[in-house]
Amino acid sequence: MNIVPRHLMGPGPSDVPSATLQALAQPTIGHLDPQFCDLMDAVKQLQRNAFLTTTEHSYTISAPASSAMESAMSNLLERGDRVLVCVNGVFGGRLAEMARRQGAEVETLESPWGQPVDLDRLQRRLAQGEPPKVLAFVHAETSTGVRSDARAIGALAARYEIISVADCVTSLGGVELRMDDWNLDVIYAGSQKCLSCVPGIAPLMFSERAWKVIQSRSTNPTTWFGDLQLLAGYWSGEGRRAYHHTAPVNAMYAWHHSLCALIDEGLQASWRRHATHSRALKAGLTALGLKLQNPDSFALPQLTVVQIPDDADDVNVRTRLLQEHHLEIGAGLGEFAGRVWRIGLMGHSARKESVERAVSCLADVLNRPRAEAVDSMNAAYAAIGEAA
Amino acid sequence: MNIVPRHLMGPGPSDVPSATLQALAQPTIGHLDPQFCDLMDAVKQLQRNAFLTTTEHSYTISAPASSAMESAMSNLLERGDRVLVCVNGVFGGRLAEMARRQGAEVETLESPWGQPVDLDRLQRRLAQGEPPKVLAFVHAETSTGVRSDARAIGALAARYEIISVADCVTSLGGVELRMDDWNLDVIYAGSQKCLSCVPGIAPLMFSERAWKVIQSRSTNPTTWFGDLQLLAGYWSGEGRRAYHHTAPVNAMYAWHHSLCALIDEGLQASWRRHATHSRALKAGLTALGLKLQNPDSFALPQLTVVQIPDDADDVNVRTRLLQEHHLEIGAGLGEFAGRVWRIGLMGHSARKESVERAVSCLADVLNRPRAEAVDSMNAAYAAIGEAA
Repeated sequence: MNIVPRHLMGPGPSDVPSATLQALAQPTIGHLDPQFCDLMDAVKQLQRNAFLTTTEHSYTISAPASSAMESAMSNLLERGDRVLVCVNGVFGGRLAEMARRQGAEVETLESPWGQPVDLDRLQRRLAQGEPPKVLAFVHAETSTGVRSDARAIGALAARYEIISVADCVTSLGGVELRMDDWNLDVIYAGSQKCLSCVPGIAPLMFSERAWKVIQSRSTNPTTWFGDLQLLAGYWSGEGRRAYHHTAPVNAMYAWHHSLCALIDEGLQASWRRHATHSRALKAGLTALGLKLQNPDSFALPQLTVVQIPDDADDVNVRTRLLQEHHLEIGAGLGEFAGRVWRIGLMGHSARKESVERAVSCLADVLNRPRAEAVDSMNAAYAAIGEAA
Repeated sequence: MNIVPRHLMGPGPSDVPSATLQALAQPTIGHLDPQFCDLMDAVKQLQRNAFLTTTEHSYTISAPASSAMESAMSNLLERGDRVLVCVNGVFGGRLAEMARRQGAEVETLESPWGQPVDLDRLQRRLAQGEPPKVLAFVHAETSTGVRSDARAIGALAARYEIISVADCVTSLGGVELRMDDWNLDVIYAGSQKCLSCVPGIAPLMFSERAWKVIQSRSTNPTTWFGDLQLLAGYWSGEGRRAYHHTAPVNAMYAWHHSLCALIDEGLQASWRRHATHSRALKAGLTALGLKLQNPDSFALPQLTVVQIPDDADDVNVRTRLLQEHHLEIGAGLGEFAGRVWRIGLMGHSARKESVERAVSCLADVLNRPRAEAVDSMNAAYAAIGEAA
């Protein structure tokens, strides 16, 4: 089966650089080979660098981020535990559902779709009544393109001595994220978003405080595959590693490569790059007459959400972009299905070539004047360049 | 990080052919791209061909086989359900542990390590008392190199109207396996064993009968990620697929390639090939003075288990094989740790070159005469050739 390449400008996966694919395709070795153990140790440290943490508890889940999300919830929660989940999109809802399946008492703090987590309401909720054991939220809601204030939420959780869980699937590498400084106890992310690795693998980090909660459980987590205390035996650097499961060796090669690329570029440089290209993209899209869904104050640079114009057919536009231009953009999800498009500039996709392509192809398919939009895009790049 | 290639003759992963690595490294596309949906449909059918089944319910789990094992148990079992697990090695024990974590009432039928599931005892157990809802067993115990009689166990389960779960991680492609003919209701396998795909992905199949059990659950499974009814929405070929999680797109390319290779070779040809090379390997190992752990009647051709000779140091021998010859063989696991080596001839590793390498390298490291062992190996190949 020969795959026709695409330009990936949806909500992830993003364009995977050929060097990452080359790393992926290195010869498979055993999951207990000393070479692979060294790679695991390196990944452990690279993840610490990527999340700005010194925690010992740095793991990679051998499955997509949804599985890491489930590991986080099932390791932290026991039957009857109380958890507060901030829901402002699909992924907050998923966190709540996973918590329910652990038999936890789940309370949700709902914010409207397209809005960040409401800090005032969260603060009021925490000030009254017994604090929950765990407070979970989504840093960058991939369903709406909205960034919530992870620093403020982490601080609130710390103040009330609650374990905070931050879904950073889409935020890692794309916007500022500081695990230790922001008091985030549990973080997981995806490989295929702002690090442009292949999908299928997910980092999962725990603070010492969160790890103690796991160690003091009185029952086993419902999951064996995602049981972190078992997994820690395999990830342990001290002496002989204990076999747990067969790791996705090749995906780990690629993940190691992608983490190195992020650290080589520098976190701040990567955040800045996402911001730069996002500004130019927004200028181009606006010049095409498209309306941005989110204000700059909380819009994710790595995922720009635009409202579908009245005169455009959602499926037809996306199908033409894919078939005629090999360009993938994201459909709306959940409440936003049929109402918005999600245009990703994640990782390797966050570059001028992609911005130009998105603007040009949308101009073509939507039948709008291309030149003006490209001019606006270039003007934005020039303004950023002058300011820098 | 440059990986030094190995010859993989342990219990998996096996040698991954370069064509599979090339398939793996094709450009990443979206998990809802029509090209990827076509690939999923093809994989669905190829898995049916590989397991000799016509069932509609053919899925691939985006994680290693341990996760597929857990999906099987958590989708079939609800709190308080009764399950009988046949345990004759590590993986039977793992099945029982996973069932316990679902709150099921778990009964084990233990057979000694190194023995197949005891059919007489199983029959007696089923003849008395209430039958369990589920009967789980391991077809090919990777920890001991033992094959159990899946056909007989499937027949017993069918007779008592019990849902049978067969762990076929190591058996698929290496020995005869017939899902429909043998009344096996739920089967999962690994990618990295006798199909020589990269690790990290796992097929999971359900009979119509098993699917009805899942559909008639009164509670949700504890897992969201592995909830088959949710996953079925993503795998459904009818109309629009529902997003569930981001599939490991590149691993699926490789899996598709590996399944095609198996079907192209033919199941019977693949089973025969594993048997042929195993016979030659055993002849060579025996000539080296090594004692085979399992009698031919239930020894797995794809995984030959030999006892560690008294004059050999387990770790030293395996370390020298790896460092001096880049040859990986498997250590003993669980009760067999330090007592046996597990020498795999799985998938692409099941070829004459590998058999010769194993015999020659072991002769070198164990300091035994090489020529005689190679002669015995060649004599075995000649005898098989004449018989054919």
